[in-house]
Amino acid sequence: MNKGRLEAFSDGVLAIILTIMVLEIKVPQGSDFEAIKPLFPVLSSYVLSFIYIGIYWNNHHHLMHTVKYVSGNILWANLHLLFWLSLVPLVTNWMGKNPFAPLPMALYGFMLLMASIAFWILQQQILKKHGKNSLLAQALGNNFKGKLSPILYLIAIISTCYSEWISITLYTLVAFIWLIPDKRIEIIFDEKLKEVD
Amino acid sequence: MNKGRLEAFSDGVLAIILTIMVLEIKVPQGSDFEAIKPLFPVLSSYVLSFIYIGIYWNNHHHLMHTVKYVSGNILWANLHLLFWLSLVPLVTNWMGKNPFAPLPMALYGFMLLMASIAFWILQQQILKKHGKNSLLAQALGNNFKGKLSPILYLIAIISTCYSEWISITLYTLVAFIWLIPDKRIEIIFDEKLKEVD
Amino acid sequence: MNKGRLEAFSDGVLAIILTIMVLEIKVPQGSDFEAIKPLFPVLSSYVLSFIYIGIYWNNHHHLMHTVKYVSGNILWANLHLLFWLSLVPLVTNWMGKNPFAPLPMALYGFMLLMASIAFWILQQQILKKHGKNSLLAQALGNNFKGKLSPILYLIAIISTCYSEWISITLYTLVAFIWLIPDKRIEIIFDEKLKEVD
Amino acid sequence: MNKGRLEAFSDGVLAIILTIMVLEIKVPQGSDFEAIKPLFPVLSSYVLSFIYIGIYWNNHHHLMHTVKYVSGNILWANLHLLFWLSLVPLVTNWMGKNPFAPLPMALYGFMLLMASIAFWILQQQILKKHGKNSLLAQALGNNFKGKLSPILYLIAIISTCYSEWISITLYTLVAFIWLIPDKRIEIIFDEKLKEVD
Repeated sequence: MNKGRLEAFSDGVLAIILTIMVLEIKVPQGSDFEAIKPLFPVLSSYVLSFIYIGIYWNNHHHLMHTVKYVSGNILWANLHLLFWLSLVPLVTNWMGKNPFAPLPMALYGFMLLMASIAFWILQQQILKKHGKNSLLAQALGNNFKGKLSPILYLIAIISTCYSEWISITLYTLVAFIWLIPDKRIEIIFDEKLKEVD
Repeated sequence: MNKGRLEAFSDGVLAIILTIMVLEIKVPQGSDFEAIKPLFPVLSSYVLSFIYIGIYWNNHHHLMHTVKYVSGNILWANLHLLFWLSLVPLVTNWMGKNPFAPLPMALYGFMLLMASIAFWILQQQILKKHGKNSLLAQALGNNFKGKLSPILYLIAIISTCYSEWISITLYTLVAFIWLIPDKRIEIIFDEKLKEVD
Repeated sequence: MNKGRLEAFSDGVLAIILTIMVLEIKVPQGSDFEAIKPLFPVLSSYVLSFIYIGIYWNNHHHLMHTVKYVSGNILWANLHLLFWLSLVPLVTNWMGKNPFAPLPMALYGFMLLMASIAFWILQQQILKKHGKNSLLAQALGNNFKGKLSPILYLIAIISTCYSEWISITLYTLVAFIWLIPDKRIEIIFDEKLKEVD
Repeated sequence: MNKGRLEAFSDGVLAIILTIMVLEIKVPQGSDFEAIKPLFPVLSSYVLSFIYIGIYWNNHHHLMHTVKYVSGNILWANLHLLFWLSLVPLVTNWMGKNPFAPLPMALYGFMLLMASIAFWILQQQILKKHGKNSLLAQALGNNFKGKLSPILYLIAIISTCYSEWISITLYTLVAFIWLIPDKRIEIIFDEKLKEVD
């Protein structure tokens, strides 16, 4: 099987998810400041989801870099990840239209939680195919971010019963954690490339 | 002609079909559990169609792997397949909004039936171009799944007159049959690759 | 400049046009035969436009095959073609919702006319860059189909004032003319390949 | 990291933005000239945004041509640019539905301003990674267009308080400035290619 087509397909799905989120934002009725006021929470949740899809694209990019063989399991683990991410536009818009409502906010966290679990499953499938001593296994190391994120999502989901601000803060915090460059994979590859040179 | 562009175009169409199905799901009015209740049948039919598109992408991937020359006939047989699959979001959403209604359920089966026939035509066109002794001919073997699926779809369509549960079970069953890895093509290719090594 | 990225971008746009046309088809209200009756003209115009986009993709594929250098003019001539094709979903759906209404039918023809002119401009730009003795110049020959189509579109547009059936017949006829395989380009390339072998 | 996947992803997003803008244009109710009258301002703003996305795709294409290494910073600078461009369909449609209203027209300019700043940031990140003597640094030269555009956008935004015609003229003018072929990058590359030959 061909890794290039898996990457291209995933890129296609992620590019579409990123772009159609805007389609869910309805054009305001009217042309004054009053008309665009309800757009602010919608746009804020759009920005957050845009960053999350960007992070997933980035991580997916890094993960696939290490892949040599694509098995049926890897293919379906990848589709499973895309499934949860495909729900992002729906949940994002629901949260944006009902700012600070607990249920949409909890479901947003649930979707993020399931996507992070799906990403972990995809990693495991790739590790299983490529061996514990593979480049990926070294690059992942202790995978601190990957382990921390689902825990923070879980706390954020439970927090929606008490205060929406805790959830919002946690969703934003996890995004920030991932935005901080994780040099591990890049460094190991750079070393490999140097060895090749 | 170039096989790469045919694959890329098909991947693009399948990626868009997969993703825009969510656009058809309307954001619930309200933010409580009551508001998301009507979403469950819509989401269930979304999951089923997501798996079917995944299966078609997977099968298309395998089929194209064996292709060496792209003729005009193959190109149009491929577009014919994409046509039936492009109707998936429409029929999926109609079925989801009218849970257990016989007509939408029968049309869903009809679309699956036509897509499976279109896939068979595409296979035949590729076989015709590549010969009965080609890698594809060997890999297909008796093509048990490909022959069983249209029959089960037909039974499911007729069943909608009696009980919707039979149809639902059959649609889910066919998806499961395809999810069970079909080692044939993979094994034959692995052997070819070993010979090359 | 890189021809690959121009092809990939055009393929992306054409794949999206092909798929989002279905998004314009609204899910019927209700689940009986009465509810899907108004879908028939909508689906018919969808089928026609699907075939036209397929033809354009096919022709674009053939045309780009002969391209060696991409100039700024070729790039913008290509975007100009994509612009007219991007209006297909809108006009298709308007025609489908107002079956046999003269104005939507005339505008559909106008869009086809402009797209065929845009394709001709793109051809001219490629010819200008590659020379009169290029592979493309030979392959095009007298370009009978390319010259006939705009004339038939023009007749179809004028016919909407008298009878919608003439227009429908002409739109279908032009699609059929293009579906008949045009062996010229394929044959010349096959000969070139043989020479290389 | 791989430059090809960054290009493909950006192309995907730009192709989707280009195409879904038409989805925002609602099919007219009715089939006479009266019904399509409100479409003219919508279509005009569509044409303008289509050209702008075309320009950005073209410029992005040229810029990426010079890139050798993709860092995390370049990746996020690229996503930042795509974010502002992803708002194009929304703002375009809002402006088209409220012709000559000052606020939508000012926001359209704001989006163009932010996109031009995002493009400048992307350029800086690439320059930082590739050095001041790189091919890109030479090709950019004094980057006259890139410096003029944000100033003209700013004037256009302020002009919406006085006259919408000044803003419209300025938005159109900037598009024209970019459409005039900028031979710099092409010429330098042609020379490089000649040296290689």
